[in-house]
Amino acid sequence: MFKLLFLLAILMLSSDGAVQDFCVADLKAPESPSGYSCKSVTNVTVDDFVFSGLSAAGNTASIIKAAVTPAFAAQFPGLNGLGLSAARLDLAPGGVIPFHTHPGASEILLVVQGSITAGFVSSANSVYLKTLKKGDLMVFPQGLLHFQVSDAGYTSVGYVFFSSSNPGLQITDFALFANDLPTKLVGATTFLDEATIKKLKGVLGGTN
Amino acid sequence: MFKLLFLLAILMLSSDGAVQDFCVADLKAPESPSGYSCKSVTNVTVDDFVFSGLSAAGNTASIIKAAVTPAFAAQFPGLNGLGLSAARLDLAPGGVIPFHTHPGASEILLVVQGSITAGFVSSANSVYLKTLKKGDLMVFPQGLLHFQVSDAGYTSVGYVFFSSSNPGLQITDFALFANDLPTKLVGATTFLDEATIKKLKGVLGGTN
Amino acid sequence: MFKLLFLLAILMLSSDGAVQDFCVADLKAPESPSGYSCKSVTNVTVDDFVFSGLSAAGNTASIIKAAVTPAFAAQFPGLNGLGLSAARLDLAPGGVIPFHTHPGASEILLVVQGSITAGFVSSANSVYLKTLKKGDLMVFPQGLLHFQVSDAGYTSVGYVFFSSSNPGLQITDFALFANDLPTKLVGATTFLDEATIKKLKGVLGGTN
Amino acid sequence: MFKLLFLLAILMLSSDGAVQDFCVADLKAPESPSGYSCKSVTNVTVDDFVFSGLSAAGNTASIIKAAVTPAFAAQFPGLNGLGLSAARLDLAPGGVIPFHTHPGASEILLVVQGSITAGFVSSANSVYLKTLKKGDLMVFPQGLLHFQVSDAGYTSVGYVFFSSSNPGLQITDFALFANDLPTKLVGATTFLDEATIKKLKGVLGGTN
Amino acid sequence: MFKLLFLLAILMLSSDGAVQDFCVADLKAPESPSGYSCKSVTNVTVDDFVFSGLSAAGNTASIIKAAVTPAFAAQFPGLNGLGLSAARLDLAPGGVIPFHTHPGASEILLVVQGSITAGFVSSANSVYLKTLKKGDLMVFPQGLLHFQVSDAGYTSVGYVFFSSSNPGLQITDFALFANDLPTKLVGATTFLDEATIKKLKGVLGGTN
Amino acid sequence: MFKLLFLLAILMLSSDGAVQDFCVADLKAPESPSGYSCKSVTNVTVDDFVFSGLSAAGNTASIIKAAVTPAFAAQFPGLNGLGLSAARLDLAPGGVIPFHTHPGASEILLVVQGSITAGFVSSANSVYLKTLKKGDLMVFPQGLLHFQVSDAGYTSVGYVFFSSSNPGLQITDFALFANDLPTKLVGATTFLDEATIKKLKGVLGGTN
Repeated sequence: MFKLLFLLAILMLSSDGAVQDFCVADLKAPESPSGYSCKSVTNVTVDDFVFSGLSAAGNTASIIKAAVTPAFAAQFPGLNGLGLSAARLDLAPGGVIPFHTHPGASEILLVVQGSITAGFVSSANSVYLKTLKKGDLMVFPQGLLHFQVSDAGYTSVGYVFFSSSNPGLQITDFALFANDLPTKLVGATTFLDEATIKKLKGVLGGTN
Repeated sequence: MFKLLFLLAILMLSSDGAVQDFCVADLKAPESPSGYSCKSVTNVTVDDFVFSGLSAAGNTASIIKAAVTPAFAAQFPGLNGLGLSAARLDLAPGGVIPFHTHPGASEILLVVQGSITAGFVSSANSVYLKTLKKGDLMVFPQGLLHFQVSDAGYTSVGYVFFSSSNPGLQITDFALFANDLPTKLVGATTFLDEATIKKLKGVLGGTN
Repeated sequence: MFKLLFLLAILMLSSDGAVQDFCVADLKAPESPSGYSCKSVTNVTVDDFVFSGLSAAGNTASIIKAAVTPAFAAQFPGLNGLGLSAARLDLAPGGVIPFHTHPGASEILLVVQGSITAGFVSSANSVYLKTLKKGDLMVFPQGLLHFQVSDAGYTSVGYVFFSSSNPGLQITDFALFANDLPTKLVGATTFLDEATIKKLKGVLGGTN
Repeated sequence: MFKLLFLLAILMLSSDGAVQDFCVADLKAPESPSGYSCKSVTNVTVDDFVFSGLSAAGNTASIIKAAVTPAFAAQFPGLNGLGLSAARLDLAPGGVIPFHTHPGASEILLVVQGSITAGFVSSANSVYLKTLKKGDLMVFPQGLLHFQVSDAGYTSVGYVFFSSSNPGLQITDFALFANDLPTKLVGATTFLDEATIKKLKGVLGGTN
Repeated sequence: MFKLLFLLAILMLSSDGAVQDFCVADLKAPESPSGYSCKSVTNVTVDDFVFSGLSAAGNTASIIKAAVTPAFAAQFPGLNGLGLSAARLDLAPGGVIPFHTHPGASEILLVVQGSITAGFVSSANSVYLKTLKKGDLMVFPQGLLHFQVSDAGYTSVGYVFFSSSNPGLQITDFALFANDLPTKLVGATTFLDEATIKKLKGVLGGTN
Repeated sequence: MFKLLFLLAILMLSSDGAVQDFCVADLKAPESPSGYSCKSVTNVTVDDFVFSGLSAAGNTASIIKAAVTPAFAAQFPGLNGLGLSAARLDLAPGGVIPFHTHPGASEILLVVQGSITAGFVSSANSVYLKTLKKGDLMVFPQGLLHFQVSDAGYTSVGYVFFSSSNPGLQITDFALFANDLPTKLVGATTFLDEATIKKLKGVLGGTN
């Protein structure tokens, strides 16, 4: 027994300082292209690897009757650098997650309640469209436009998982109508008429 | 309008054949280190991107009172090359997913029913242990030993998601006791006594 | 000299078969998530690494007064697996490359003639907009919506380079209006009114 | 000659500051998911790229009659970010490197003295087992359980090389028996009886 | 409209802090193996993504009658982490970019003026050589020796693009003759005679 | 026991077909940018993971008094896709591995016999030079020019390990003088005089 303890000391000592199985995000230190800086291992606890922020429903009292609650590295620091993140989708009947992309990740949707019609469009402009029930999975390849809609009569809940701890989220309507991109330029680059653009800018808070 | 259609033709034509947003697995063609060969895009349908095999509970009528149902690229070909996969965990009260690793991926667990105590051990030999409720997420960093146990009185269900379309799964007990690795060698490399090894080999079907 | 030749034989022999500096695409063999299969090295010539298809101007006689000519791995097989590709942009005065994304790559634009106003929108919905002259470079981070417009009075030419041999190209208007996605679903997921959608579907060849 | 020196000045100047061929670890600066921060190039010397710590035998006077001496980025800072690291294995006759994994790397073993029986177990539960002599190489794929044993009568020495500058090291026995994971939980997740667990916890310094 | 604005607030808020579509280099903060630290997004402007430093010709008044002007992450911080960079080549008639490699990237050359003969040599020692005209592209696979020469009578200009934001640049002659590597060692490792080495060391400023 | 066997069946069955921990090279099937196609797992044996080809000394009876014996994926198929390979260096007294690069990998050298002076040159043109004894390690960052010389009076042996299963090998002298690159072009791109080039071409078997 004495000898084995001795061995233990040797082996553990020898690997001391060499261990970085994970890199819990220190949100206040410098970021790099590979993600956030790592919190010191001595300050890491199991709570860095657990996130309860998706257990409650998001507020669907909006015109889209839906909410997205993210668990990316910024919310869930234990994910940093591990190539995974998550979000919760809540959709009231008829609720919609509008057309959007994740610039840096593919996505899997798991339907846990209700009925969701989801679709994506490929670079070749093919539409992949399906109505999903509880327990179904659907995958959305990286960077492609996709959406989710709760079917009539269903309050739906889904969880989505991404192939990056920081997948990004770009909602097409927000990118086009909720900032200061000049109306004329939006028109030229989308073929939409100015009246339509101005109306949506008005609704979404865009200017110019 | 004529001119725009003309443009469409030009743009679509020019990108013809250059499009590979995804690589749905052709399970019968050669594999490479990056995954399965791709099915021809012309044969791809939305059903390649949808998987319903996790909607039903696995059979927990075993000594571990638990079941794991995978949705890796081999079961869900649309995942191939996208850096994501999934599995469903069913645990009867007291059910156990024994200590295991995924050699090629990190994992997120989402608890959708019951109460699960989960843990992992780091290279530095620290234990990260937590009891999770419905809606909780826990992340298990790549390659580390971890387990999930359903708490007493709870029938639990979880979904796990991986940072690879082919994460692998190595259950420690199976690796040690369910194959033809000689008892003497198992003993030498685990410090377990031969009686214990032989008993577990008997239970798990190992030989030698 | 005899000895050196002898050495040469040894060293060259020893590395025989171990050489794969590149993987020129064999467009007819299976694809994998990492790209096309490799053409046999014995059939590779310098012409596999040279592409002249971007030396001529694209046809800008369309409503967008612009053309995109790609040099992706499908057109330029020597690029396969090397993490690079290219395209040529031709824009008549007022010509427009409409809002689009590249799902799998970042992009650098080099303006070689004229004056181009280019912009992209970030996930945080900030607009980055600039008028570029001959010799200017602009970078568009991976997966983000961006566009290029030739300024009034200028016939402009640009070359774009991508961080993938197969970057993909998704033009937002085509994804929304040039396929069979039902008008109602487009409306629900974009907030556009049905009349606008139907008009653009008409122009771009969409149905439903 | 004047002109060539002039050229030299231009070319060297132009690339000034752009050079980062390596990233020698600054062990006191923030870490990121990609590794340690880089020491300033002006402070880098050849000694950052040389490591003599594996030239002496490790102490094998323990119950496993073996020692592992690592040369990971923490010990050998020049490796940081280069996707390589090393360790030395010393085994007295009958010495054992117990079952373990490297969560983040594949491994090559080079036997430089003696006779080593090594093996690994795949996810499919196949055993790959071989007795190796001086000069033999064996590869252990990423994350899989493996071990090395010195054959009777041989004092053996091996060097192992990893596909990461920080491969991690998880010795199964230590993960199970050398920490505070409750005996009951170890039993539930390994099928081992409590007496066996308590005995090994006693030997290896585990509690609970 | 009120409700939609409400939604906007929810969605934008929820993703607050999770956004890192890019990582503009902060040249004064720590570097990591993945690149420079990121400048705070609040300080990023479009000018970080635009670079005009390649619009003017480099000075070709040197013995090689050529100049290379880089736009790597150190010069063009918006490229950091995006897997792309660029450089401009100016060659007077007969100008030469001597044999060199980029240790960390493949390269595409675009000829925009003149006539350039370019070539690379593979690991198998095959020569790939071609004379390129305006508008031609040529790709040089990662790490291989290559060169570019302006053909007689042509003032040539090219732009090169790399598959890394920090490709590195190693000019063979400089590595051999423009530093303090002892003449004897250069001779032993190149088969060149000492007189030749000393002459080139003299021209290029090497010592020893 | 019955139940446990039942469990085993379930778990093993469920992961059937999903297992690809490794990808042993099938040298006759198509290659992809990620490496060779995988041999069927049913045909894989432990001998695919073991290589004895480096146990014998290479023939140093040549003018460089040295030999390199590779164990890349083409020689050692089990390495395919695992990000590792190896080679053996044999050097008679005064033997030389001439200046060379590995386009696709970093390298660690382990000296197992004798005394080796090794060096590399960085992009910044700094020389990193060291005399190494038995047991010393030295790392050569990816793509940089480096060499190894056996010190006077020593017969030396080293093993090198690479961060790729297919690192490539480009010996500068062979690239310049052992192929059909025209003498005039070699002169223009290296500053060497024609007599020197022709002499080395003669020795190394180059033409033109």
